[in-house]
Amino acid sequence: MNARSNAKGVQTSTRPSGVVTLLTDFGTLDPYVGIMHGVILRIAPQSRLVDLTHRVAPQSVRGGALLLRNAVEYFPVGTVHLAVVDPGVGSARAPIAVATDAGWLVGPDNGLLAGAAEVLGFREARRIENERLLLTPVSNTFHGRDVFAPIAGFLAGGGAFDEVGAPVDEILSLEPSLVSDDGSVVTGEIVHVDHFGNLISNIPSKSIEAATSIEIAGRTLTGLASSYASAAPGAVLAIVGSWGTLEVACNGGSAAETLGCGVGAPVSVRRV
Amino acid sequence: MNARSNAKGVQTSTRPSGVVTLLTDFGTLDPYVGIMHGVILRIAPQSRLVDLTHRVAPQSVRGGALLLRNAVEYFPVGTVHLAVVDPGVGSARAPIAVATDAGWLVGPDNGLLAGAAEVLGFREARRIENERLLLTPVSNTFHGRDVFAPIAGFLAGGGAFDEVGAPVDEILSLEPSLVSDDGSVVTGEIVHVDHFGNLISNIPSKSIEAATSIEIAGRTLTGLASSYASAAPGAVLAIVGSWGTLEVACNGGSAAETLGCGVGAPVSVRRV
Amino acid sequence: MNARSNAKGVQTSTRPSGVVTLLTDFGTLDPYVGIMHGVILRIAPQSRLVDLTHRVAPQSVRGGALLLRNAVEYFPVGTVHLAVVDPGVGSARAPIAVATDAGWLVGPDNGLLAGAAEVLGFREARRIENERLLLTPVSNTFHGRDVFAPIAGFLAGGGAFDEVGAPVDEILSLEPSLVSDDGSVVTGEIVHVDHFGNLISNIPSKSIEAATSIEIAGRTLTGLASSYASAAPGAVLAIVGSWGTLEVACNGGSAAETLGCGVGAPVSVRRV
Repeated sequence: MNARSNAKGVQTSTRPSGVVTLLTDFGTLDPYVGIMHGVILRIAPQSRLVDLTHRVAPQSVRGGALLLRNAVEYFPVGTVHLAVVDPGVGSARAPIAVATDAGWLVGPDNGLLAGAAEVLGFREARRIENERLLLTPVSNTFHGRDVFAPIAGFLAGGGAFDEVGAPVDEILSLEPSLVSDDGSVVTGEIVHVDHFGNLISNIPSKSIEAATSIEIAGRTLTGLASSYASAAPGAVLAIVGSWGTLEVACNGGSAAETLGCGVGAPVSVRRV
Repeated sequence: MNARSNAKGVQTSTRPSGVVTLLTDFGTLDPYVGIMHGVILRIAPQSRLVDLTHRVAPQSVRGGALLLRNAVEYFPVGTVHLAVVDPGVGSARAPIAVATDAGWLVGPDNGLLAGAAEVLGFREARRIENERLLLTPVSNTFHGRDVFAPIAGFLAGGGAFDEVGAPVDEILSLEPSLVSDDGSVVTGEIVHVDHFGNLISNIPSKSIEAATSIEIAGRTLTGLASSYASAAPGAVLAIVGSWGTLEVACNGGSAAETLGCGVGAPVSVRRV
Repeated sequence: MNARSNAKGVQTSTRPSGVVTLLTDFGTLDPYVGIMHGVILRIAPQSRLVDLTHRVAPQSVRGGALLLRNAVEYFPVGTVHLAVVDPGVGSARAPIAVATDAGWLVGPDNGLLAGAAEVLGFREARRIENERLLLTPVSNTFHGRDVFAPIAGFLAGGGAFDEVGAPVDEILSLEPSLVSDDGSVVTGEIVHVDHFGNLISNIPSKSIEAATSIEIAGRTLTGLASSYASAAPGAVLAIVGSWGTLEVACNGGSAAETLGCGVGAPVSVRRV
């Protein structure tokens, strides 16, 4: 996307909802996430904290970006979304905050936030550099605690966005995963495997309305199912999933296991 | 149970506590649960959300029903309990809300809610059909987000129960797991294995007061322990557990591993 | 530590922040933690609950104590920290509450709370024995629900500390893990392996400022890295970690896997 500051200037009227979401690859073994909750609550005691997931694959910026992008639209206007998947912590990558039409994003400028910023309506990004707002000393290994949580708390508590730091012209975005469409065949790939083993593709639902067959992992599926349970038990099916894209599932089982495939697997839709 | 609308009509005086619990088989890998939190908070911003567990075995309605039934009584009067273990999502099974003496239940009408409804004091059930209250379009794969979370938020925020939809005469209940008692021997089964490997049975504590010996997995345990630590380290013991039933545990270890058994294993108690 | 009641008496002016943290070895499979949330919210409806972690190794009091000690300082003054790793539940070990300069601790008197109490500034400990404050009947297997959660709710809601029970002179503390320093070599051990496989040692950062080499698992690391990403991909590095101690990490990987070691592994730092 290479989001740019928009020309019409930044509206400053969005009020914080008090909701702060957290998405990380920190896992649930350690108190790292709980510590971030604590830091936020010290600064903004009335915050209501929601864990999106902390099981992003370790250091998978692309995986985290996808999950964040698909979750943010369901939250109240004025929500602060804190996301940390940050293999470059303590190095040159900038810590940033992003103002959008529907709230704020806080995290490293490594592509993690760009898709979500686009969904929420990008307004302006700033580099986090106001040391008065941070925990001191800032460690080189846990910016979630020392940098990002304090800024999330600051914004959730009504702090002025322009105090965070200087504007940045653009934020880093990731190459989108490719979908090609030659009119009769749409080709994409699996971008996520969920807890149930459902295979989530990047082919948007509007591209599959006239689907006659779907090819994945050497199998051909004919037509779209209306629900998981409309297929025979154990059968693999294609469906418009809750992500708004083509999803390949297995009634009562795991499509990923049944088909033996996962993220990156090609999938194609034939229209006739 | 086949709970029926009670004849004396529905009291409408219970006020929401603002607490909403969530129990699903969605796991913690994806942001599905976080998204439901977001949907609820958009509708009822002051809600306090409690995750009961999201690790019900995938599509195990019976397992989810058991955990829900045993948890609901510990929450404030006026709590909304949202539960989704829903292999039939998008098919004919009805989405329902249930009013009880102590709060509300929201989920699919597949047996998941009936035991909890009985514990809390069933009053009335309604089919969720008021589309104005739902996210649109309703997907066929994620009613947790599009149907159940909006209704939970509506009720937690003080919405009128009768706006949800038309009354239903009875809700689906599951065959209870069997306990038989011939006077000298009570026979039941293991219904849950917890995180510690404790084997939770369905034999109520009052049936084991005069227990002389317990048989499970080919072993005979004599008498009831007063605490886990009252047995020798590594020893298997029988105890009245926190579920109010006979529990078989292992001091400092996992009874499930030590005995090599799990859900469905028969257990019997001899009284003399 | 063998913390003692201080002579200058107990200040009673700390006001509860409404935040309650929970740390247990209960895991996330069962609704045990959710039930504790419910019990607390029934007593103190305005509480904001933060889960530190529930994945302490089963019955590892030492592991839980370490995580608790390192987390508590990041929370608001007036927070109640509820911790339950309790292999002796229902036996002779006492249930206690501890007042500190920065809030309260609640849990079993088995060493779990002592390090955190020291960090927060120990004031006074009391044995939990006021049955009017507890759930009745108190089970012998789940004091988290029946004893500790009610007291946490009582304190979070502004209850008077001295109503909990009678003062106890000292609380149990654990032998600290050993660090030795002969002037040129500091020797300690790995005390935690985190979600990323980072090896957290007990050697404080001030002891390693002049480090020239670090020895662990037969490897010699020269110098301290400034960030994870400053090492070559896959390289093992030593760094001052977010715990304020020497940490051994692997850029983009797991140091625990790469070095084949874990908790208890010796590590030494040479200064010349």
